[in-house]
Amino acid sequence: MDCKEGIEIMADNTLIELSLEEIFDLARDTLMAHGANLETAEAVAKNVTKAEQDGSVSHGLFRIPGYVVALKSGMADGHAVPIVEEVTPVVFRCDAKNGLAPLVHEYCLGKLTDAAQRFGVAVVSIKNSHHYAALWPEVEKISEAGLVGLTTVSYLPWVAPAGGKTPIFGTNPFGFAWPRPNKHPIVIDMATSSMAMGEVQLAARDGREVPLGTGLSTSGELTTNAADIVKGVLLPFGGHKGSALALMVELLSGPLVGDKFSYETEKCDEQKPGSTQGGQFIMAISPNILSDKDWDSQTEEFLKRYAAIDGTRLPGARRHANRKNKGQRSVNAKLIEKIKCLRDRK
Amino acid sequence: MDCKEGIEIMADNTLIELSLEEIFDLARDTLMAHGANLETAEAVAKNVTKAEQDGSVSHGLFRIPGYVVALKSGMADGHAVPIVEEVTPVVFRCDAKNGLAPLVHEYCLGKLTDAAQRFGVAVVSIKNSHHYAALWPEVEKISEAGLVGLTTVSYLPWVAPAGGKTPIFGTNPFGFAWPRPNKHPIVIDMATSSMAMGEVQLAARDGREVPLGTGLSTSGELTTNAADIVKGVLLPFGGHKGSALALMVELLSGPLVGDKFSYETEKCDEQKPGSTQGGQFIMAISPNILSDKDWDSQTEEFLKRYAAIDGTRLPGARRHANRKNKGQRSVNAKLIEKIKCLRDRK
Repeated sequence: MDCKEGIEIMADNTLIELSLEEIFDLARDTLMAHGANLETAEAVAKNVTKAEQDGSVSHGLFRIPGYVVALKSGMADGHAVPIVEEVTPVVFRCDAKNGLAPLVHEYCLGKLTDAAQRFGVAVVSIKNSHHYAALWPEVEKISEAGLVGLTTVSYLPWVAPAGGKTPIFGTNPFGFAWPRPNKHPIVIDMATSSMAMGEVQLAARDGREVPLGTGLSTSGELTTNAADIVKGVLLPFGGHKGSALALMVELLSGPLVGDKFSYETEKCDEQKPGSTQGGQFIMAISPNILSDKDWDSQTEEFLKRYAAIDGTRLPGARRHANRKNKGQRSVNAKLIEKIKCLRDRK
Repeated sequence: MDCKEGIEIMADNTLIELSLEEIFDLARDTLMAHGANLETAEAVAKNVTKAEQDGSVSHGLFRIPGYVVALKSGMADGHAVPIVEEVTPVVFRCDAKNGLAPLVHEYCLGKLTDAAQRFGVAVVSIKNSHHYAALWPEVEKISEAGLVGLTTVSYLPWVAPAGGKTPIFGTNPFGFAWPRPNKHPIVIDMATSSMAMGEVQLAARDGREVPLGTGLSTSGELTTNAADIVKGVLLPFGGHKGSALALMVELLSGPLVGDKFSYETEKCDEQKPGSTQGGQFIMAISPNILSDKDWDSQTEEFLKRYAAIDGTRLPGARRHANRKNKGQRSVNAKLIEKIKCLRDRK
C-alpha cells in the first residue's frame, strides 16, 4: 500500500464519497497519530473540513500528508501554545511557537477583533507560525465581527519578479473580507502568482496546457507546457502590477511582522523539510468607526448593480454556494487510502 | 488662441523647456486665478511640480486645466478648510470640505503618522476630497516618518469587472510605500485597471495598438484598437484577480470611509462637471512596533538579492532616479500655451 509522506498529486482520480463528519474525524485522527494534541488537531481538522465543504479541494484533505511531514520532522509543534503580547492597545505580537496556523488564530483573532471594534483598527503580527491553509477562514472570521479583514502570508520562493527569471517571491497570497451583516461576506483569497503551484502540477499530470505568462521553463522561456513550468519558475499574475503586489506581500508577511522573507524560509526548509514556518500579517478595520454613514445599505445598493452585470460574480460566492450543501463530498480515493495508511501506521 | 477648459491630449507634441520653479509658479498662479487661495494653490503646485520632476508627466501640468474646471464649476473649493476629527486615538475622520487632496493631506497626514508611530497603526478616513493626483506623494510622506503607507481612491466608473461589459469600477488606484531609512522608499502606485485612461487616449491619438485585454469596444468585444476602447470600456489588469482588487478599492475608498462608490460619483458629475469628489482611505503602520527584529537590515539584504535579478527594478525606482535631476523639464508647448491662457484670462 502507498503510504509515502508529503502531499502529492494523485495520478488516479477515482473518487469516493465521505461525509463532512468522516472528513473531520479522518483529519483529526491522522494529525493526532503524528504528534498533534487534541486542540491543534481539531483546529486544523475544522479548517480542512470547511475547505472540503466549500469545494476548495486543494486546501482540504489534500494537505493532510503535508501537515504530517511538518509534524514528524519537528518543524511544526503539535503541542504549541502560542503567546500573544499586547504591544499597544491596537497591536498584538503573536509568537506562534511553531504551532499550526488554525490553532494560532484561535489564540489571537478574538483579541484582534475586540481591539478593532473598540479602536477602529488593529493588527496582529504573527511569527513562527506554520500556515499551510487558505486565508479565507481567518478573514471570514474577522468579517463575522462586523469588520474588514486583511491578511498576507509568504512561503518558499517559487515566483520570479516580472521581467526576471530567478524566483524570489512565494506564491504570496492575499486575503480580504468585507462584512455583510446577516449575509456571506465578500471574500478575496488569491495568490499573487499567475496560478497556484498545485494547479500547474495538476495540469502537468493531465497533459493540459496553461496560459502563456503562467511561468518560464528551466531555460527561462515563456511556455504553455505545465511540466516545463513545474521544473522552471512561476510568474506573478498581471505582469509588473502583480509583481509589485507580490513584493508588497513579501514585505508585509516577513520584515513587517518580525519574520522571514521567502528566500529565508527556503534556507530553513533545506535544514528540516516540511517547514512552512513564517510570518502572517492580519488586520481588522471597523467600518462602523471609520464611516459616519449607513455603509451596509450603501454597499448592498452597489452590490445589486454589480450582480446585474452579466458574466460576473462576487469573489467567494462559489464557495459560499457550495457551503449550503451539508451532504457527502467526493474525495480522491487514493488520497483517502494514503491518509488512512498514515493514520494507522503512526 | 486655444483657451478651452478641461484636460485634453494635445495633438501636437512640440516640447519646450521649463525650470521646476517656472512649473511651480505657473501651476500656482493659474490655480489662484481661478479661485484657489495661496494655501491650496501652493499645495497643488508642489504636487504637480514633484510629478514633473519625477517624470510622471500625466500627473504634472497636464492636470492643471482639469483643476481649473473643478474650481470654476464650484465642485472643488479653493478656500476649503478641512476638518479632522479624532474618533479614537488611531482613527481620524477628515471632512475635506471639497478641498483639493494635496491641501487635505497637509491637514491630516501629520496626525496619522503621529498616531501610527505611537500606537503602531492608524487610519484616516477622508470624505468630500477632490483627488486628482498620483498616490505616491502621500505614501512617500508616510514612509518618511518610518512607516508603511497604504492608500486607495476611486473615481468615475470606467472599468468593467472581469467577465462583464458594463463599467462599475473606477480605475481605482492603490498606493503603498515601504520605508527605507536614509534611502528612497519602495513605492507602488498603480491603477487596478489594465491601463490609465490617459494612456489609452494617447495610444488612440497616435494610432498605436494596445495589448488585447486592455478593454472592450462599444459592442463589448476585446480589441487592440485604442480608439474603440476610449468609446467602449476599460478592463481590470490581470483578469479576475485584478478585478477583485478593483472591487476591494471600491469598498475601501467608498463605504469604508463614508463616501461614494464610483457610480455614485458619476451621478454628482452629471450635475456639476469637473467633480472628482470622493473618499480616500489612508493607513500607516509601524514596523518598529510590529516587528521585534532589525527589519531594516533584513529588508536591505533581501533587496540586494532582488537587485541581482536581471530584468527587474524596484517599483518607484525610475521616478526616484529622475528626481535627482533638478534641471529643466520638457513640457508640451501647446499645454503651456493653454495654461498661460487660463492663467491670464481669469
